[in-house]
Amino acid sequence: MRRAIELAGKGTGYTNPNPLVGAVIVKDGRIIGEGFHETYGGLHAERNALKNCTEDPKGAELYVTLEPCCHFGKTPPCTEAVIKSGIRKVYVGNIDPNPKVSGKGIDILREHGIEAETGVLDAECREINEIFFHYIAHDTPYVALKYAMTLDGKIAVKTGESKWITGREAREHVQFLRHRYAAILVGIDTVLSDDPMLNARIIGGNNPTRVICDSRLRLPLSSKIVQSAKVIPTIIAACERNEKAQRLEALGCRVLICPEKDGKTDLLELLRTLRKEKIDSILVEGGADINDSVIQTKSVNKVYAFVAPKLFGGRQARSPVEGKGIDKISDAILLKGPEITRLGEDLLLEYEAR
Amino acid sequence: MRRAIELAGKGTGYTNPNPLVGAVIVKDGRIIGEGFHETYGGLHAERNALKNCTEDPKGAELYVTLEPCCHFGKTPPCTEAVIKSGIRKVYVGNIDPNPKVSGKGIDILREHGIEAETGVLDAECREINEIFFHYIAHDTPYVALKYAMTLDGKIAVKTGESKWITGREAREHVQFLRHRYAAILVGIDTVLSDDPMLNARIIGGNNPTRVICDSRLRLPLSSKIVQSAKVIPTIIAACERNEKAQRLEALGCRVLICPEKDGKTDLLELLRTLRKEKIDSILVEGGADINDSVIQTKSVNKVYAFVAPKLFGGRQARSPVEGKGIDKISDAILLKGPEITRLGEDLLLEYEAR
Repeated sequence: MRRAIELAGKGTGYTNPNPLVGAVIVKDGRIIGEGFHETYGGLHAERNALKNCTEDPKGAELYVTLEPCCHFGKTPPCTEAVIKSGIRKVYVGNIDPNPKVSGKGIDILREHGIEAETGVLDAECREINEIFFHYIAHDTPYVALKYAMTLDGKIAVKTGESKWITGREAREHVQFLRHRYAAILVGIDTVLSDDPMLNARIIGGNNPTRVICDSRLRLPLSSKIVQSAKVIPTIIAACERNEKAQRLEALGCRVLICPEKDGKTDLLELLRTLRKEKIDSILVEGGADINDSVIQTKSVNKVYAFVAPKLFGGRQARSPVEGKGIDKISDAILLKGPEITRLGEDLLLEYEAR
Repeated sequence: MRRAIELAGKGTGYTNPNPLVGAVIVKDGRIIGEGFHETYGGLHAERNALKNCTEDPKGAELYVTLEPCCHFGKTPPCTEAVIKSGIRKVYVGNIDPNPKVSGKGIDILREHGIEAETGVLDAECREINEIFFHYIAHDTPYVALKYAMTLDGKIAVKTGESKWITGREAREHVQFLRHRYAAILVGIDTVLSDDPMLNARIIGGNNPTRVICDSRLRLPLSSKIVQSAKVIPTIIAACERNEKAQRLEALGCRVLICPEKDGKTDLLELLRTLRKEKIDSILVEGGADINDSVIQTKSVNKVYAFVAPKLFGGRQARSPVEGKGIDKISDAILLKGPEITRLGEDLLLEYEAR
């Protein structure tokens, strides 16, 4: 099963909103086939493992991190393939939380005389699919906040200069996160000040959908984001439609009209809309005010804080989360963790919502 | 020697501005005596170890973390005691950086026919005395910045409430730091808003000298600090003497007149004055503006950043280092580290100046 989990991880960034799944087929103590869910719409892990078998799987055992599906989606049910293959026993990590499956896959296998054992390395299997499990159970995507700050909590010096806070390794890791998440969300101020691309600059990287909160459609037509909107999916979340909207659309952007709240895009409504459109996960990359607004929706699942070994000082220097903020310490957003990773000279502190 | 280092650590907080020193006497492979420098003005480690010997040290070997002294200070030279004891060989960690010793102790031992080996676990011995080594070589004390912040870099919510950011374990650790450092430095605003005691609240704790930067003598006579100044040494660093100064002095405070710089106490001069008065180490406990001013003196040796698993948000919420700050990222104060300690739910990140 550990090998199956390892295989599942290879699909990271390519399967959203589908789960990561790995499968290993064992006969007489030898692995005779392996596979994983490689890409959204492609073959499921079990079918890939069967396809890759080096000998007849009849009488073999299948290890699979997630319950085999039993419904027609983009591909026919995996239970069918497993039954047909002559597999004798199936070891399953997690029961599929998708209500269309949710134990029915196991039932079908057993009805066909296949032994099935569930909950094998349950926690480890679940860990790789935290996004999928959240997505299935909630009406908002899995939301992560990401920022890079100095040890004194600054995301820029007082003049606004913010390139770069962290070193090469930390910035490369951000590219991996962008690949992993289905969408990136930023505020219009970030785009106006940095003119970023917000793509995943890694080899074979999957570019996330870029979502810009831009209630008054201030996004310049000449910005890198607009200029690349025909290649990388781009959503402009605005509160009004105007003539600029058509010009943005002509350049490939999609203008999404959202309800207004306190003069800005209603972020909770935006998150719900994106979830309905099968965006399972969003990486929020600031700035400071958008970060606060997202936190106020109570939808944040994770925080990635990169900490650089530097001090900037400055009353006027911006910090990672601003906006209105809270009035009382007892109202603080509480987190748990962190998982700590050293990236060159920087630290990555990963916290989960409590 | 490892045992000697362990013993040395027991003097932490009691020996300033003297170094921490441990000594172990070994005869025929057995430890026959142990000791450490317990308190400033008390017996040195070697003499304590000799005093504690359970049998005649003649022909034994002495392990000592720092070169035995050869001059009359508060106590007579340790070299004399070692020679008289009949010790055959001495293993030394660090050569004493004090110019009055600096190898001369070793020379004297050798002149008396005692074998001496130096540099034993040199780095480990040095590590416990980082404050002492700095103190001997510089005209400022060893300066450490300490603050507690949320994961989004806040030391208070926007209304100013700051109790508490961190949990019990982290706050207890601060008490230990106060015990370890010879002085605490804070700005008058911190005293006005929190009315703190700034003492070391641990069993047997050694209270640091409290240094308040208060250029205009705004410190209330009714504050806890003034009211306890007859018991705990308290220095008010002011830029002018006035009638209030006398009243503070009558209550036990010492008013130290410092040069003025940009309308505030010249901190570099203050640090130099404190160093001359044998204050070997200072823990700077804020607020945000004093922290920046101290950083600007380029005298900071260490930063203790406690990070709580919370988010406050708020443009108006204060962050750990404010003041003027820097204009360009290339001017950032660079640190190295960190050493990471989990204290309950909080993190302690310890960085050194680069």
